Amino acid sequence: MSASRDQRSGSKRKILAAIRAAGRIARIDVAKATGISQATVTTITAEMLSAGLIHEVASDDGDRGARRGRPRVDLALRGEARTVVGVKIAHQSLSIAILDFSGDVIGEHSAPLAAAVQSTHDLAAQLRTQISIAAEKAGMTMDQISAVGVGLAGIVDATRGFVHWSPSLTERNQPFRDIAQEALGCPVFVDNDANLVAMAELMFGHGKNVQDFIVVTIESGVGMGIVLGGELYRGTRGCGAEFGHTKVQLDGALCRCGQRGCLEAYVADYALLREADVVQNSKQSSARQIAVLLKAARDGDQTAQSIVNRAGRMFAMGLANLVNIFDPQQIILAGERVQFDHLYADGVMASIRQQIVQIDLPPPEIVIHKWGDLMWARGAGAFAIQGVSDMALKDLGEHAS
Amino acid sequence: MSASRDQRSGSKRKILAAIRAAGRIARIDVAKATGISQATVTTITAEMLSAGLIHEVASDDGDRGARRGRPRVDLALRGEARTVVGVKIAHQSLSIAILDFSGDVIGEHSAPLAAAVQSTHDLAAQLRTQISIAAEKAGMTMDQISAVGVGLAGIVDATRGFVHWSPSLTERNQPFRDIAQEALGCPVFVDNDANLVAMAELMFGHGKNVQDFIVVTIESGVGMGIVLGGELYRGTRGCGAEFGHTKVQLDGALCRCGQRGCLEAYVADYALLREADVVQNSKQSSARQIAVLLKAARDGDQTAQSIVNRAGRMFAMGLANLVNIFDPQQIILAGERVQFDHLYADGVMASIRQQIVQIDLPPPEIVIHKWGDLMWARGAGAFAIQGVSDMALKDLGEHAS
Repeated sequence: MSASRDQRSGSKRKILAAIRAAGRIARIDVAKATGISQATVTTITAEMLSAGLIHEVASDDGDRGARRGRPRVDLALRGEARTVVGVKIAHQSLSIAILDFSGDVIGEHSAPLAAAVQSTHDLAAQLRTQISIAAEKAGMTMDQISAVGVGLAGIVDATRGFVHWSPSLTERNQPFRDIAQEALGCPVFVDNDANLVAMAELMFGHGKNVQDFIVVTIESGVGMGIVLGGELYRGTRGCGAEFGHTKVQLDGALCRCGQRGCLEAYVADYALLREADVVQNSKQSSARQIAVLLKAARDGDQTAQSIVNRAGRMFAMGLANLVNIFDPQQIILAGERVQFDHLYADGVMASIRQQIVQIDLPPPEIVIHKWGDLMWARGAGAFAIQGVSDMALKDLGEHAS
Repeated sequence: MSASRDQRSGSKRKILAAIRAAGRIARIDVAKATGISQATVTTITAEMLSAGLIHEVASDDGDRGARRGRPRVDLALRGEARTVVGVKIAHQSLSIAILDFSGDVIGEHSAPLAAAVQSTHDLAAQLRTQISIAAEKAGMTMDQISAVGVGLAGIVDATRGFVHWSPSLTERNQPFRDIAQEALGCPVFVDNDANLVAMAELMFGHGKNVQDFIVVTIESGVGMGIVLGGELYRGTRGCGAEFGHTKVQLDGALCRCGQRGCLEAYVADYALLREADVVQNSKQSSARQIAVLLKAARDGDQTAQSIVNRAGRMFAMGLANLVNIFDPQQIILAGERVQFDHLYADGVMASIRQQIVQIDLPPPEIVIHKWGDLMWARGAGAFAIQGVSDMALKDLGEHAS
């Protein structure tokens, strides 16, 4: 691709992103928001209109239009332009969201996984089965699906669609995208699940007002997604934004990854339970045991408090390090475990404030988003929307800008 | 400023940066490198030519020119367009580099500071005196200096030229830029010193080939500069990229900052010396004591080894965390203490490799740059060049792009 095509391609992405962010917006405001000339905005949006990606809607700014003598026209995304699927693969289950091109959810479905750890081919076959069921529930067929986005835990090079390692897969170094595309018969986009929560925030949540934020997810493990300047930051080998296995203690507690002193080895479910097991031998499910432990801590049990408090203090140390390194506008905590508050109780927040560099400005805001798996699936869908948008924009006519 | 002016301003910066990176380059190659149309490149470079920022030079690609029938013409920066000064303020001394617009060093000077900690006004007065001496040595007068860049340790909001805190200043919250501009009578740009080493790498060093790298400086303290996508990353409050005060041990060793467990509290000079003082009471200078301690460790003294090894292991843990978080192409270690190898000995490097997330790709390269204070001053000069370039580009004629 020539360099001036690169620039034109960048302009198309910016224009579509501006329309998506605004919901509905006049051409002149697209030019203002993107810094692209009005002539170029007019040319590119004409191509988007004829490709059916966007449509014209009467402005709700009626008065102003009337004064000008003709109704003002806004641009908006055409929801029916594309239909995509987002899938979150969790420890024991998968969640599916079907989205239109605007990002609105038009169908959803959940199902248990056949196995918590399986081959990529087996997982791809299950994706096919469950997406078909989800499509049928929404009154659609598979061939109406333009693309599928998949989020899973692990180390994923999203650019290549390559999974270095995932707790959901039996084997390392899997060309996940290629295998899934063959099974599903449509383009597939795959990324680390925490990155896709950040993508959901960027497209549907806080990203509209905040350009530099970090999402930390707390489920059975600890994940992170980093957004800088309104873009997901992935690192050069596709394995950046790793937080759960940053070290908080030299030669510390043994982690499931085989290394010592990882943050997860102090705050993950298994870390809390191996401590709880020292003093009590429970036959209950992990989720139930965690709930019992946290309640005991709240009720004043000293051993339970000692277990939970250490997790909170280690988590505070890790978050303070992120603040020191990134100085973000906002940190968002999300994931199944934020239904409990032990990792953002007052003491944890005070500990973060004590451990960050002290300047006479308020620290970054820390917000809690109690989202379920559907929002994660919606993030995977957002990634698919980005993918199909790029493909559609590439197909638009090529003119000099 | 209107949005299309913003875009044009971005194009001007990109074009000047492409010429700076190439040294000498044909217009058509500027268009290719930047993705800006040839017509726009021709218009903008004509303005730069008439403003005297760049000049035309005969291409050294003589054969090709001859075959085409007329000599090919390249563009290059005009060194004499501007003269800037870069200053590094160290613990006991300051170093000055005078640079031309191409970044070539045309003069240098060092002097002791009147005091290691002083008021901003006193420091600004010394800057004036020493820059005058440096200018005179180079056969120049102060009024030939277009701008001064200053790097100092501490927490600096470079955008506002505001120093939240610096070990070189008696008071917090100093409008350093304004005070220095008044004393020096020209524009001043101020930033954290480690950021300016990263700036030097970006403009004169590795930045030409590497777009995502981290510079870690080891002097009496530990500093960091982060370059992502070829741009310095500063954080939202201007206090990002803090590494020396990230925590490596919960409730750990007391740091000079008043907090506990900071990386500096294990690897800085004072941290090594407070351990060494437990077993020996030396009257020598700090620098001499550090040299004696490191030699004793090399010679097999077990206590000395215990002190030095812990510093190395804590440093490895901190660097491994940076790799896990950023996944950069390269990490550059620089600063006075890299004359000794205790923080990048084989054991330290092995420890980093053990603590990063394991994927089947080689880890980021770690390179050692044994630079003196002059390179830091050159980085401060690079920041001033960026500043005067922005000012000059703003003055260029305004046409539609």
